[in-house]
Amino acid sequence: MAVITVWKPVENAGVTYPEGFVGASVRAGLKSAGEDLALIVSDSAATVAGVFTTNFVQAACVRWSRRVVRRGTARALLVNAGNANACNGERGEADNRTLAEWVSRHLRLAPDAVLTASTGIIGHPLPMDRMERGIAAAVAALDRNEQTDPGIARAIMTTDTRPKLYAVHVDSDQWVAPIRIGGCCKGAGMIAPNMATMLAFLSTDARLPADLLQRALERAVSRSFHCVTVDGDTSTNDMCLLLASGMGQGEISREGPGFEDFVEALTRVSVVLAREIARDGEGATKLVEVTVHNALTYEGAHRIAKTIAESPLVKTALFGNDPNWGRLLMAAGRAGVPFDPERVTARIGEQVVFQHGSGVPFDRQMAHTYLQRPEVTLLLDLNAGEESATVWTCDYSYDYIRINAEYST
Amino acid sequence: MAVITVWKPVENAGVTYPEGFVGASVRAGLKSAGEDLALIVSDSAATVAGVFTTNFVQAACVRWSRRVVRRGTARALLVNAGNANACNGERGEADNRTLAEWVSRHLRLAPDAVLTASTGIIGHPLPMDRMERGIAAAVAALDRNEQTDPGIARAIMTTDTRPKLYAVHVDSDQWVAPIRIGGCCKGAGMIAPNMATMLAFLSTDARLPADLLQRALERAVSRSFHCVTVDGDTSTNDMCLLLASGMGQGEISREGPGFEDFVEALTRVSVVLAREIARDGEGATKLVEVTVHNALTYEGAHRIAKTIAESPLVKTALFGNDPNWGRLLMAAGRAGVPFDPERVTARIGEQVVFQHGSGVPFDRQMAHTYLQRPEVTLLLDLNAGEESATVWTCDYSYDYIRINAEYST
Repeated sequence: MAVITVWKPVENAGVTYPEGFVGASVRAGLKSAGEDLALIVSDSAATVAGVFTTNFVQAACVRWSRRVVRRGTARALLVNAGNANACNGERGEADNRTLAEWVSRHLRLAPDAVLTASTGIIGHPLPMDRMERGIAAAVAALDRNEQTDPGIARAIMTTDTRPKLYAVHVDSDQWVAPIRIGGCCKGAGMIAPNMATMLAFLSTDARLPADLLQRALERAVSRSFHCVTVDGDTSTNDMCLLLASGMGQGEISREGPGFEDFVEALTRVSVVLAREIARDGEGATKLVEVTVHNALTYEGAHRIAKTIAESPLVKTALFGNDPNWGRLLMAAGRAGVPFDPERVTARIGEQVVFQHGSGVPFDRQMAHTYLQRPEVTLLLDLNAGEESATVWTCDYSYDYIRINAEYST
Repeated sequence: MAVITVWKPVENAGVTYPEGFVGASVRAGLKSAGEDLALIVSDSAATVAGVFTTNFVQAACVRWSRRVVRRGTARALLVNAGNANACNGERGEADNRTLAEWVSRHLRLAPDAVLTASTGIIGHPLPMDRMERGIAAAVAALDRNEQTDPGIARAIMTTDTRPKLYAVHVDSDQWVAPIRIGGCCKGAGMIAPNMATMLAFLSTDARLPADLLQRALERAVSRSFHCVTVDGDTSTNDMCLLLASGMGQGEISREGPGFEDFVEALTRVSVVLAREIARDGEGATKLVEVTVHNALTYEGAHRIAKTIAESPLVKTALFGNDPNWGRLLMAAGRAGVPFDPERVTARIGEQVVFQHGSGVPFDRQMAHTYLQRPEVTLLLDLNAGEESATVWTCDYSYDYIRINAEYST
């Protein structure tokens, strides 16, 4: 069995930490304050993988970047916050193409080597004059900065309350050399009064062919970003990209133990970032980890965990620090996945609260105190099979309503 | 084509308005105040139909009443609020059976002629001494009251803010005689800090065989109670029952135009009651009607409308009176039903806000003012097919969080 032998997180490092990447963040004037445009450039043609929103209403950047990913390599990624450039019709498509062309001219690349990503308000045309000046400033800044990761992570924020970045130096006994993996993400924030967008950008200096990279990303995302839910709403702009520069000594050329360890490392990095999204969910007072154990299938376990994590009644109870296990069972039961309640054991933290088809006596005051922690876990053991799934979410507070009800279109 | 020729709603009348039913409501002491136990009795063996929760975690009353419905006739319905008798294991099953036996002894019926329904807190055993005294009092009250509908509707309330009842005298050119239909319902309310339960009890004095009655109920429910959503959570105790006494002059013995008109009348009554549930949703400040027009299938239209109606981002925007059509499109797009955004027209009230793939200029102030009304409509025309669906919901307010976060288990 493959073993990850070294795992060294690097403070304040993110998506440009791996060899071969430079980045910059600038203020283009799209948000009310702060940096709002970032550029990430690979010295060489990086192989690229991507996972995109499943929403049938998709922003121009989603359509564009999906085509770039299909070609397998990219040189640059332009991302802006403050405007999603979604639901802008033909004009939105043309504007997005122009952004890629501007970046390509500055960097002497083909336009289809430029990935684009946007987050922010829907249905407002991009202020192209500001974008043009912002891109020029970002290109100029690339020369002067090698380590701009915190700035990049800040530039993609909308109603996020803090930047989310992570990077590791990692080694495995299956690899020829250690590799670096970095990343940043944002969400589920809103800009003005608009919608949550999940953006995540990952990078590595390992060399991987595009098809392997895509498989690795899909597996990592399925156990990390796909396991985060703040309110169940899926954006028009959601996107997770992974660039592999190949500029380090590491190389993974085929499936096998070395690839499995790369997937494992990528998943760990993604889980760290994904948990930060849940922890920073709108109005969140705590990070909630919902685990379903011993289901017949992973999909069933995941669906039950997600239904619990998205239940407004569960989330409001958590805000109230109320060990209300009835809601937990109710939410599990309506997930559309058959199970036998008689065999279920439910726990809030360490305490068993439900077993053999009915509630069991537990220390309510202790549970109430436990639920006031910044991280809490809910566990449902179905005793039916061997598959488990974990989903991360947050509670529903008054601030969730306030943030999302403010009139500001 | 069949035509309903007479439609006379009767004020303050409900489930015992049709010929052949008597009822009573009493205080058994399950809720903190007010009536909390109701009994409805049919003079004859009424044919009975039922639709029950799809939750895999089901209360004892759901299992019991489903068996009664399967037999096709019933004489009495006992319902209590304040305690759901759900997740109480073997004891819960035994207690529910005892309730039916007590009612059957008082009324000299077979126990399996007694339907039971409960709503309230989960995981707490029923206080059987209070139930026994309450049943005796309700049976005694049956003799003295003929018109107890408002009391029955009050007795089944939990966090509902008002009783919900409706009754009509109705005729069709396809019927031999006019018939009466009555009903009451409750939800989505909570008791203590527990879960929403939707209960609806309908009755008619027409004579219908049980299989026709079941078909009529399923069709009416699919276009009424199944089109209501407050928070997407489905209770362990949800139940809709329909009793047909056959004590009036009306008779429907087979499918055909007369049956279609019965379904139409039953649906209309159910829609009135269902809308009252949405209007009285926890913390609601308005009733929201979401309609999807011109979909390829009814199921697709319904799923898109329901996804919009359950989107926390849509519901908080409605609370803020914010004409945020971006969230409407986003929610529609994530429903899992393919459609072409380029062909969609979206309206808030009468105003078109989105067409041909992008937003169109509209009067935001007028829309903001419109959204402050007690009833508002959102409409999405897919321009793809000919099927339409409507779903009723309410907005998400601070009070929704308050009601559901209060620590009180």
